Amino acid sequence: MPKALIFDVFGTLVDWRGSIARGLAPWVPDADARSAFADLWRARYQPSMEEVRSGRRPFVPLDTLHRENLDAVIDDTGSTIPEGDRETVNLLWHQLDGWPDVAGGLARLGRTFILCPHSNGNVRLMLDMARHNGWRWDAILGAETTGHYKPRPESYTRAAEILMLPPGEVMMVAAHNGDLAAARACGLATAFIPRPTEHGAGQTIDLEAEADWDVVARDLDDLADKLGA
Amino acid sequence: MPKALIFDVFGTLVDWRGSIARGLAPWVPDADARSAFADLWRARYQPSMEEVRSGRRPFVPLDTLHRENLDAVIDDTGSTIPEGDRETVNLLWHQLDGWPDVAGGLARLGRTFILCPHSNGNVRLMLDMARHNGWRWDAILGAETTGHYKPRPESYTRAAEILMLPPGEVMMVAAHNGDLAAARACGLATAFIPRPTEHGAGQTIDLEAEADWDVVARDLDDLADKLGA
Repeated sequence: MPKALIFDVFGTLVDWRGSIARGLAPWVPDADARSAFADLWRARYQPSMEEVRSGRRPFVPLDTLHRENLDAVIDDTGSTIPEGDRETVNLLWHQLDGWPDVAGGLARLGRTFILCPHSNGNVRLMLDMARHNGWRWDAILGAETTGHYKPRPESYTRAAEILMLPPGEVMMVAAHNGDLAAARACGLATAFIPRPTEHGAGQTIDLEAEADWDVVARDLDDLADKLGA
Repeated sequence: MPKALIFDVFGTLVDWRGSIARGLAPWVPDADARSAFADLWRARYQPSMEEVRSGRRPFVPLDTLHRENLDAVIDDTGSTIPEGDRETVNLLWHQLDGWPDVAGGLARLGRTFILCPHSNGNVRLMLDMARHNGWRWDAILGAETTGHYKPRPESYTRAAEILMLPPGEVMMVAAHNGDLAAARACGLATAFIPRPTEHGAGQTIDLEAEADWDVVARDLDDLADKLGA
């Protein structure tokens, strides 16, 4: 049984695509164009972190990468978001809305387990998102705290070290099979929760568990049931 | 007006001396000897961190220093705390009791301000202490998160950087004039709260504000009044 649950956030706890699309309304009038903009912005997420993971670039927080990627998407799409509004747009990532089960699920799980986000988002981003959604964390782990972007193994091992727990007593909770595979390779326990509309109605990846994760749950409430919380 | 309050913890928020003395009861029967043991343990705190601050030793978390200092105090005093109990004794620092005003004061201040501990204690120590006292933090800053022990300037500047705030919008709250002087030198706002029995009835230091700190308050409730929270 784990003592701490650490959570992937983008996709697993929050609907980043829907939230970003809603937040873009003042700048991008058409709803489909907003979803497409969100997809293009997110498509630059992994490649931009790979520059850091590979060692080609020193660590910078995700807000910095998000801002660079925003400028690139504006250039690519010819959007008319003025320079003076771009910091506000960039901070939309700090105000993403949780999936409906998350606030109640975290409150329930927090009575039994240490709960921390373990996201590639930076500390202030996670802190603002927690306030926006009424969540309370025991501590904020993740990329800025560990100095490494997932799925670098140092990210997971350092998280367990900070928590002063053997890796097997730390459970990574994610909607992404790849995140869980990387966590398991470091000895962490694993829980999969499918989020089949993270990428919209036509999602084709991470629709189900692709390995025998320690727990597979429908949502955080089901996870609490399965962990006896 | 600050946007975030960051707190010294040992002495400012918790009665470390009384809590450690109470916790030592199973191993040290005499109450005066327990307080003396707590003082000796704490007396090694600054010198042990100075090894790290000076660069003579790579960063290690405070739990590591506390344990080394515990072994030294046991040697010095001829105490009979068996090796197998020492990890339990070391973890007494994770369960220190807050001063009476702290739980209510933090709950009130948290409605208006971002609240983070900025202590030399490590993340798990702060996390356990928060659960023990019913406090909820927005994030855990401090030595393990910033990589520097106070009063190194990097500790304060990195805290503001992680919070994505100009230093002047971050207020250091402490019962120690030296901590506030170091924070002010880095541009942080400052609030002093006297804790005249931190070191017991005969305390001679930090009995009052020794500079024109931005706020001087009797306790956290008075601080909330003075900040309009």
